[in-house]
Amino acid sequence: MLPRIKRLQDCLKGNEEILITSYYNLLYFCGLKVHAGERMLALVVKKDQKPILITNELFGKIEAEDTGIISYRDEDDPIAILASVLDKETVYVDDQWTSAFLIRLMDKHQAEYRNAGVITKALRLVKDEEEQERMIQASLDNDEVMRRIRPFIRLGVSEKEIYNKLLELFEKLTHEPVSFTPIVAFGKNAADPHHTSDNTVLKEGDVCLIDMGSHYKDYCSDMTRTFLQKNPKMEEIYGIVKNANIAAEKAIRPGMKYREIDAVARDLISSYGYGQYFTHRLGHGIGLEVHEGYDVSSSDEEIVLEGHCFSIEPGIYLPDVGGVRIEDLVIVTKDGCKVLNSYSKEADFFE
Amino acid sequence: MLPRIKRLQDCLKGNEEILITSYYNLLYFCGLKVHAGERMLALVVKKDQKPILITNELFGKIEAEDTGIISYRDEDDPIAILASVLDKETVYVDDQWTSAFLIRLMDKHQAEYRNAGVITKALRLVKDEEEQERMIQASLDNDEVMRRIRPFIRLGVSEKEIYNKLLELFEKLTHEPVSFTPIVAFGKNAADPHHTSDNTVLKEGDVCLIDMGSHYKDYCSDMTRTFLQKNPKMEEIYGIVKNANIAAEKAIRPGMKYREIDAVARDLISSYGYGQYFTHRLGHGIGLEVHEGYDVSSSDEEIVLEGHCFSIEPGIYLPDVGGVRIEDLVIVTKDGCKVLNSYSKEADFFE
Repeated sequence: MLPRIKRLQDCLKGNEEILITSYYNLLYFCGLKVHAGERMLALVVKKDQKPILITNELFGKIEAEDTGIISYRDEDDPIAILASVLDKETVYVDDQWTSAFLIRLMDKHQAEYRNAGVITKALRLVKDEEEQERMIQASLDNDEVMRRIRPFIRLGVSEKEIYNKLLELFEKLTHEPVSFTPIVAFGKNAADPHHTSDNTVLKEGDVCLIDMGSHYKDYCSDMTRTFLQKNPKMEEIYGIVKNANIAAEKAIRPGMKYREIDAVARDLISSYGYGQYFTHRLGHGIGLEVHEGYDVSSSDEEIVLEGHCFSIEPGIYLPDVGGVRIEDLVIVTKDGCKVLNSYSKEADFFE
Repeated sequence: MLPRIKRLQDCLKGNEEILITSYYNLLYFCGLKVHAGERMLALVVKKDQKPILITNELFGKIEAEDTGIISYRDEDDPIAILASVLDKETVYVDDQWTSAFLIRLMDKHQAEYRNAGVITKALRLVKDEEEQERMIQASLDNDEVMRRIRPFIRLGVSEKEIYNKLLELFEKLTHEPVSFTPIVAFGKNAADPHHTSDNTVLKEGDVCLIDMGSHYKDYCSDMTRTFLQKNPKMEEIYGIVKNANIAAEKAIRPGMKYREIDAVARDLISSYGYGQYFTHRLGHGIGLEVHEGYDVSSSDEEIVLEGHCFSIEPGIYLPDVGGVRIEDLVIVTKDGCKVLNSYSKEADFFE
């Protein structure tokens, strides 16, 4: 049995079964790389039986160790096939499965349906040695691209120019797709945490915020740095955000709750009166997907464990003025965390 | 009230409500363009009330005509907010919503849950005049790119070279992203309907299959042509596939069932003994999404209506030998259909 399937089975009781359907869960648990689009692809795992994969013939020949394969064609009803394979009281359903499939399945098969995310997230979030090596290399590459983009940050450049240059640098260095659309935001655009890069030109007094990531062997990187011009307000919030970032990273210990990490950064920012301008969670789990696992947020009660990997990205956003965010990835260790990004967080003024 | 919201309300009874959550449904029904990622974004529509949009502050200021807005922050529970807004016996759920959200909602709010796809698909599939104009222009552009790529199809070229050239031609002509990863398949690679382009070189006797599309003002194009070398087997199946394509397009009438269109092509191909090598549905609905609405498949009982837009793409795939597919888009008219692609389907031999 594949070791990750075994671990999944260890989470199940005898009267439970789990449906794995998303691209990344199938990649993680059995090494498949199939983009199923709107067609159904589902792995059914029970406690003491060989898993069964239900697949469309169009996906081609599928090799999956120790797994029974049921193939269907476009004219068949894959939900009826799936229902015929299910026989337990409780069915855990992949959190990414579409409601269209789930509602059809509930019509055909009576059971208690639960969210499989509680199981799969917990397993995927603990990175094994090989995964940690990939996460580390992905962030080393990300640091290197930040170093290479730095000379291009000059007054008069446009967001789109930096954006296009970033794509070119990633392509050259990593030969992998970016893990999300990079955010390049100048001046007051940086007050929008999700700004889309446009033709805005970098002017005196502006910040330059860059949030970017790529992949190494399927694993994601994600980092933000904010570069400065002389500007007392921006320098002030830069210092606070930097301290919040460092304080949160220093506070991380296995055994604490995710919300307690969020609180470290949020309390620090609030103590300077900027709490209402830190408008998002402190961070998010990351791995095969750029957002996976738990949130580092004020409402997340989950426990931090050794091997967990997530982002620490405090920010202060002053509407119509500007914003600062500083983001690293970390992996939790036995007594703290390893910060994967080594690119400097010291205030860096461009010309 | 926005006219498409009005049409949605007309489909609902007084004791029903509908959740619209996907990017394309929100774009279609109320003109929003928000990529919500893993965060919740939901429009609740009831028969005789103003719709309510539940949105995360991070999505920015949302303008939606005649719509109540409820904003939440990352630390709030959007599913609890959503549950508090629902009060009908039946809740139609966007077919693309994730099971994770749906299962959490079902825990908080007792109702009969149904698939909203039956309503939204039917509405979106009937293209109004402006949508038809966009679909037509998108396919005119697609024809033009096929004309521009044709001179590059020569012995010795690689799939990746054609693929990269296609991306360049689309970028230049349409300034829009492709609507799906183009398929460029030579020789026996063309026997795989979903082949990923690689370094295979075009050799004597090979077919060259190209399946491609882009966008015009958010609406998709999608077309396949297969180019030939002298090769009796491939010429034979080319003739059959071409006839199946033309016969199916000629047969289209409003009022018939989707499966009846599929049967026209499938029966013709089967009559030559190749039925088992036509391994996929005849076509798929298309519009804002490259696959939307109904399938032109042997199991689809839906009725074809004026204004419906879909693909007609018969194929014959001979494993380890080669394959042929010929695909056009059509819009159903009062008494037949308009074929959106005018690029020739005559056997075209390259050198």
